[in-house]
Amino acid sequence: MSKGATTKRAILDHAAEVASEVGLQGLTIGSLATRTELSKSGLFAHFRSKEALQLEVLRHARERYIDNVLRPAVAEPRGEPRVRALFGRSLAWMRGDILPGGCPFTAASMEFDDQPGTVRDFLVSDQRDLLDSIAQVFRTGISEGHFRADADPEQFAQDMLGIEMSYMHAHRLLRDPKAEDRARKAFEALLTATR
Amino acid sequence: MSKGATTKRAILDHAAEVASEVGLQGLTIGSLATRTELSKSGLFAHFRSKEALQLEVLRHARERYIDNVLRPAVAEPRGEPRVRALFGRSLAWMRGDILPGGCPFTAASMEFDDQPGTVRDFLVSDQRDLLDSIAQVFRTGISEGHFRADADPEQFAQDMLGIEMSYMHAHRLLRDPKAEDRARKAFEALLTATR
Repeated sequence: MSKGATTKRAILDHAAEVASEVGLQGLTIGSLATRTELSKSGLFAHFRSKEALQLEVLRHARERYIDNVLRPAVAEPRGEPRVRALFGRSLAWMRGDILPGGCPFTAASMEFDDQPGTVRDFLVSDQRDLLDSIAQVFRTGISEGHFRADADPEQFAQDMLGIEMSYMHAHRLLRDPKAEDRARKAFEALLTATR
Repeated sequence: MSKGATTKRAILDHAAEVASEVGLQGLTIGSLATRTELSKSGLFAHFRSKEALQLEVLRHARERYIDNVLRPAVAEPRGEPRVRALFGRSLAWMRGDILPGGCPFTAASMEFDDQPGTVRDFLVSDQRDLLDSIAQVFRTGISEGHFRADADPEQFAQDMLGIEMSYMHAHRLLRDPKAEDRARKAFEALLTATR
């Protein structure tokens, strides 16, 4: 990588962390300048507008998600082991093991669901891809004979995301020590219902 | 109600709508002045700071939730009918039937989970009350013999909230026409598992 690309990547790592903590709307070139101790004009050279910055941060967070959650899960054997790996790594993502503020997509989805524009469009496309990925991983379990042939992969995807979201809420907002145990029980019940 | 109280209630109705659309952080006295066409100084007379405004909006939204979701559900017969009423009304709340931007608590929970202060403290207390209410409604189903005696009401509460959250995500962000059907199926599966 060139020096410019390395610098930009380091800024985006930092920006994704800030966004995961205060939300995409709280992430401005001004706030990023304060946190990184870089000049506003230097940051403007990388991101010409707040919206461009928001989009680059989402793209960057998506790469972090693929590298830390999706790709290692898909490296597991097809079917139930792969579904379990995806769920376990998704909990880590929601918890904040990869980006310290938890999942920036969930937070941004709530922020931007009523705000038409390029950020919302990106989120819709990204979250459809996410649900498609869960459904696709689940389908390997149908073809391997681990789950019922008539199980609905899209239903499973929406249900699994729900378990992750209420886990994030109970763990990060309420700091409920039983949150993860409950999320894992809900996941086992969901798998049981697909057999 | 006095004229002042009536005016304040009308402002809070409007502010709760704005907050449910753009988030609590997007709700400022300046933005509220623009939307309501009231003067900033007039609004300052009602809410002395941005934080005071955010707290009053959350308290007001909580009243709307109690009036439109919790109280009518609790008026239903104890046990399964009451649990079903609570779920159905919760979907309407998430969808935006009561406040047009959907559930402001879910959005605010994501915004404020990493931001210590009075707003976060209010949300923690409020969301614990919410989960306690779901668990309490569920317990009436255990004592009526509709659900297993060893079913876990706190587990049910976290699971039901998860179904609502992924429904809100699929309906409001993705505009998925099957979102509600899937949420209802997930709820039936959850009830089946408690019998």
